[in-house]
Amino acid sequence: MASQSSIAIPVDSPFSLANIPFGIFSTQSQPHPRPGIAIGEHILDLKVLALEGIFTDCEVTFPSDVLTHMTLNAFAALGRPTTSGVRAYIQSLLSQSSSPLHSDPSLLERCAIKQIEATMHLPFDIGDFTDFTSSKTVSVECVDDIFTFRKDSLMYVFHPPRAASGRVSTILPSGIPIVRPFGHLPASTTLARTTGFSLAPTNELDFELELAFFISVPTEHFERVPVEKTEEHIFGVVLLNDWSARDIQIPETLPFGAFNAKNFASTISPWVVTLDALEPFKIEHDIRRVPSYLVDEGDATYDISVSLKVIPGESLEREMEMTRSCLRNSYWTFRQMLAFHTLSGCRMRTGDLIGTGTLSGEDATSLCSLIEQRKHFPNRTFLQDGDEVVFTAWCGPPQGGVGFGECRGVVLPARSFMVKARHPN
Amino acid sequence: MASQSSIAIPVDSPFSLANIPFGIFSTQSQPHPRPGIAIGEHILDLKVLALEGIFTDCEVTFPSDVLTHMTLNAFAALGRPTTSGVRAYIQSLLSQSSSPLHSDPSLLERCAIKQIEATMHLPFDIGDFTDFTSSKTVSVECVDDIFTFRKDSLMYVFHPPRAASGRVSTILPSGIPIVRPFGHLPASTTLARTTGFSLAPTNELDFELELAFFISVPTEHFERVPVEKTEEHIFGVVLLNDWSARDIQIPETLPFGAFNAKNFASTISPWVVTLDALEPFKIEHDIRRVPSYLVDEGDATYDISVSLKVIPGESLEREMEMTRSCLRNSYWTFRQMLAFHTLSGCRMRTGDLIGTGTLSGEDATSLCSLIEQRKHFPNRTFLQDGDEVVFTAWCGPPQGGVGFGECRGVVLPARSFMVKARHPN
Repeated sequence: MASQSSIAIPVDSPFSLANIPFGIFSTQSQPHPRPGIAIGEHILDLKVLALEGIFTDCEVTFPSDVLTHMTLNAFAALGRPTTSGVRAYIQSLLSQSSSPLHSDPSLLERCAIKQIEATMHLPFDIGDFTDFTSSKTVSVECVDDIFTFRKDSLMYVFHPPRAASGRVSTILPSGIPIVRPFGHLPASTTLARTTGFSLAPTNELDFELELAFFISVPTEHFERVPVEKTEEHIFGVVLLNDWSARDIQIPETLPFGAFNAKNFASTISPWVVTLDALEPFKIEHDIRRVPSYLVDEGDATYDISVSLKVIPGESLEREMEMTRSCLRNSYWTFRQMLAFHTLSGCRMRTGDLIGTGTLSGEDATSLCSLIEQRKHFPNRTFLQDGDEVVFTAWCGPPQGGVGFGECRGVVLPARSFMVKARHPN
Repeated sequence: MASQSSIAIPVDSPFSLANIPFGIFSTQSQPHPRPGIAIGEHILDLKVLALEGIFTDCEVTFPSDVLTHMTLNAFAALGRPTTSGVRAYIQSLLSQSSSPLHSDPSLLERCAIKQIEATMHLPFDIGDFTDFTSSKTVSVECVDDIFTFRKDSLMYVFHPPRAASGRVSTILPSGIPIVRPFGHLPASTTLARTTGFSLAPTNELDFELELAFFISVPTEHFERVPVEKTEEHIFGVVLLNDWSARDIQIPETLPFGAFNAKNFASTISPWVVTLDALEPFKIEHDIRRVPSYLVDEGDATYDISVSLKVIPGESLEREMEMTRSCLRNSYWTFRQMLAFHTLSGCRMRTGDLIGTGTLSGEDATSLCSLIEQRKHFPNRTFLQDGDEVVFTAWCGPPQGGVGFGECRGVVLPARSFMVKARHPN
């Protein structure tokens, strides 16, 4: 692959020629969502390229109309040999001097859009959303707060692996503001104590820094996917903020799991970094005591670093340290998650999203949620109205050129709630 | 409404003129799924009626092409005033002597299909699936088995209301066989005890008899729906079997909730009984101590009876008693469920499915899952391969003519699992 691109790429861009992440975007002049890839500070409009027949020269044969759809589902469902070939062809279009992007300036003008002029949408029509629990630290740190009843061991928390279905309708692309949710909360006032509950906006709004992967090729009903076949079903990876209201979560979790505490919003980064882009960053996963069907030896995971910061809204005096962690802190690999998920025969559909769970590490600067951070920094507050949470992720060294961009969300105040006067709580 | 129909209706049919449930069906000669209503032992093909312009005489104006779609989503999204009007018009088509169904025998021949010649499909493209916990009995009976850590009170189990997101990709229409799932189970053999877990098919496959309702008109992100507005967003009701593997569920539930224990399959009855059909069966809901935003006075729920039977596969000697219960046993009304669900601002989309949870009553013949029944009938076994589970539901007296049809599923043996020899468990 040549290092020159027909579109200028800043050296510190997360979207180098080595990346080529896929997403769905629209522009003011063309508001219909369509597929693109991110390159430097631009988007390459794949619909324009498809409609102009540019993909007829691609080495892999595929129905290029899938690149005119409003989601990536049909494209990803073609499977990795095809999507890898298309990605490689896009790299060659951008880098080779014989490419029409080099020889036809008007084509380049039609298909290169500045990212700041685009609106990003959800990359997939998401059928199901699953969120795992993968961080040893989360499990240990939070056991006191949320899971008060049993603290046996890590073996207990990870065997069987733990995951939950999540809400799909409220998965949002980066940048959409989050309205502070109301909750049916445990009694905290004298009046409420007489009834046992109160109605109030959450006072403990939190984030969870995660990665998540999208399913490409679907599976059949009651089909299991062995670990070594899982990558055939994974398209790529995004950042995920699994917004959580801890005061709503605690009573819900005993004994049924979080519901309203998490169903109001989850935010993902809009650019899907493919397994092909991640391939050079494969690393060995710590060998752990797992049942044979989950054994995942060799380079089974990826060297992906993640970071988060909270940009305070009004109370600017609050501390604002950067948190850094990495995918290594996940107890399970993506492959193990998918193998476990299908152990029951649970069907996967193209566009299903599977989150890692909070990626906290062991030291205090790598804790990926406020509920954990507050154990080490008691003065740190939960999210205030106006706070913006920003996640980033990248592979290898900071200037490796394979990054995830940002996953952002700002907190808006709760919407007022008219309580019927005759039944005060 | 006249009592005569252009299509013969057996007196004990659940699908009388007073019902008119909507569903999606196909036939061998026309395999494209399309909307229909059930009437007696027939289906009225709404796509044929729409394409022939029959709905131009309907009192409500609506885009009748929605009745040519492969799902009911676009139709239901029109909202209750419209869908009620269409249902009333279909009743008049069937009952009035001036109707083209009476005057044009060839039209009747083209649009009346025998149910036994049709294949039923999922009625909606389901975006999200939520399952509540509503039965006092389940909560109390099963506390010992599954939720060992705390038994405070019913107040504890229902405040806040408890619900969980469920798997959408494995919701199946009645009649699709269920493959017994494998599980990552707690140690039960000497060898497994050394590693703490074993890999085996579930030995405790169970059913849960529930009702569930479909969302019609969607809500906005972060919009709350007050109890008194909820019916504007509910299209109708089906039976739901939330298949559960109890030995997989118990370790998963502590502390994160069921996952593989329930994600392999859920079965629904294919005919959606509308709120209009249920309206004559409205009854008062027991007044319970609830926060003001959940107060639901007046005729807030429905007199719906449910029953289940297990038809044994091979071991015919097993007992086979009928279980009967009713929606009255639900702690929450449909309206309260939807109001609570949107308290956080969780967005609803057309086709979202919300289950009541197991509808067990207080006596031993009204327990709607085997895990509960086994407390009273210790010799009753969990489901065996070949067993078929059949649910039915009806309104008012048995011959009221407003029934739900059946929700059926037969259990198939687990599929063999090749475990890598070098890592025996």
